[in-house]
Amino acid sequence: MSQQLPTDITSVSHNRSFDGWQNVYRHYSQVLNCQMNFGVYLPPQAESQSCPVLYWLSGLTCTEQNFITKAGAQQYAAKYGLIVVAPDTSPRGCNLPGEEESWDLGTGAGFYVNATQMPWAKHYRMYDYVVSELPQVIAANFPVLSDRRGIFGHSMGGYGALAIALKNPGMFKSISAFAPIVAPSQVPWGQKAFRNYLGDNESDWIGYDPTYLVKLTSERLPILIDQGDADQFLDEQLRPDIFAKACAEVNHPLTLRKQLGYDHSYYFIASFIGDHFAHHAAALGK
Amino acid sequence: MSQQLPTDITSVSHNRSFDGWQNVYRHYSQVLNCQMNFGVYLPPQAESQSCPVLYWLSGLTCTEQNFITKAGAQQYAAKYGLIVVAPDTSPRGCNLPGEEESWDLGTGAGFYVNATQMPWAKHYRMYDYVVSELPQVIAANFPVLSDRRGIFGHSMGGYGALAIALKNPGMFKSISAFAPIVAPSQVPWGQKAFRNYLGDNESDWIGYDPTYLVKLTSERLPILIDQGDADQFLDEQLRPDIFAKACAEVNHPLTLRKQLGYDHSYYFIASFIGDHFAHHAAALGK
Repeated sequence: MSQQLPTDITSVSHNRSFDGWQNVYRHYSQVLNCQMNFGVYLPPQAESQSCPVLYWLSGLTCTEQNFITKAGAQQYAAKYGLIVVAPDTSPRGCNLPGEEESWDLGTGAGFYVNATQMPWAKHYRMYDYVVSELPQVIAANFPVLSDRRGIFGHSMGGYGALAIALKNPGMFKSISAFAPIVAPSQVPWGQKAFRNYLGDNESDWIGYDPTYLVKLTSERLPILIDQGDADQFLDEQLRPDIFAKACAEVNHPLTLRKQLGYDHSYYFIASFIGDHFAHHAAALGK
Repeated sequence: MSQQLPTDITSVSHNRSFDGWQNVYRHYSQVLNCQMNFGVYLPPQAESQSCPVLYWLSGLTCTEQNFITKAGAQQYAAKYGLIVVAPDTSPRGCNLPGEEESWDLGTGAGFYVNATQMPWAKHYRMYDYVVSELPQVIAANFPVLSDRRGIFGHSMGGYGALAIALKNPGMFKSISAFAPIVAPSQVPWGQKAFRNYLGDNESDWIGYDPTYLVKLTSERLPILIDQGDADQFLDEQLRPDIFAKACAEVNHPLTLRKQLGYDHSYYFIASFIGDHFAHHAAALGK
């Protein structure tokens, strides 16, 4: 009888895509204490060599499916020879009180933090999941060049990508975001999540807030952000101006592009995903 | 008070996409006697000039959403300056007995025929809808060059594209299909649909069967078909060999490409949609 390893995964689906494979796997997360799905795109190059790896973090309400079905990412992953990992956005099915009550807290809304508050603390540790456990699982199962990693994401996932990269200098070679929540401590989505997951003390929040983190890090990884000017969440939840100001104060390299007429949807993401892949590929040496 | 015209439409959604617009509209179909949704992609070129138009017909269980969210078509429509119309696959909500009982008959399975049998005959007239009513609605509302039309589709919609183009010489300048049901009279999906919609007399079926129609037409529009060799429906339902033989008998130009490892999903479609757009754009003078 074979022993179950913490990095073991099982196949959920596999689909040929741009001469590579768009796969979905399931595994038991020791960090989250539940089963988790994640998507992995393996480009054709991965059949014969190790490849850089790009992590995509999705937004509120998403599973691992939204990005892999709607973003049109595979064509670029195949072009540049990048493995793309797309995790789910929260633990699921943990039977916590309130888990399913709202779309911006609990299921589908893990916010890439380690919750310290009950009832969330035992499961809602998406920060450790994305920073530590998932990369180990990926490294154990796929031909990734772990020293050539990039990260990007959308909305809550754009915030997650910024926060995780800025908190972990040296871990990523490239970073970008679509319509990220750049200042979670100052906007309703972030405040609701942080209050529930981290408690009422706002000083416990800023360690996850890109607008503060960018002032602490000495790493100067260039950041690309695309933001649609017709995004319904722009003024209340996203506020890229706050982050732009913070970057300017510390001279952090930021390319913030305002995209005219674009909203918050995957149509927006698909329209510019090619530019983001070019940004990452250049930094990852592809 | 303004008069309601048969070609009037209302907006359901509009999303900026590749500097054009991916829109969805709703209208009352006189032919189908129900409300219908359809997608229209308007490329940036359509802001200042009339454009050729490409009709996409979807497969079993699909709505107008599947193609517009998953195929990655907009980037190519924008590149070539093509308007792309994606109708739903059947009438909906007509409260017919049996309409919702199976996924391959009734809702989501209109099969692009004019039903003659009860209870379907009053509503299930997707052939007339796609050939006559929808093009009139499109011409009345969008800047299309109606003499430069192409048609393509997937599975049931690939069959629909082949049948409709072959039955209407001169109507289309280009045609292609992904994993089409090429011989509906000879496979279970087609036989079930034709028996229910058209009755038991098989001679009433062949007027919709591409494998027969290709032998009747004198038009020699080159056909491009992509077919995955890992498609789970290949041997029982799709049978491109039957169509290839029919084309060979009458010397009809057919490019049938076997795509290794590809299945029946939108991952397959997205992988080759660029080639199909190139095929159509060339024939449509773009």
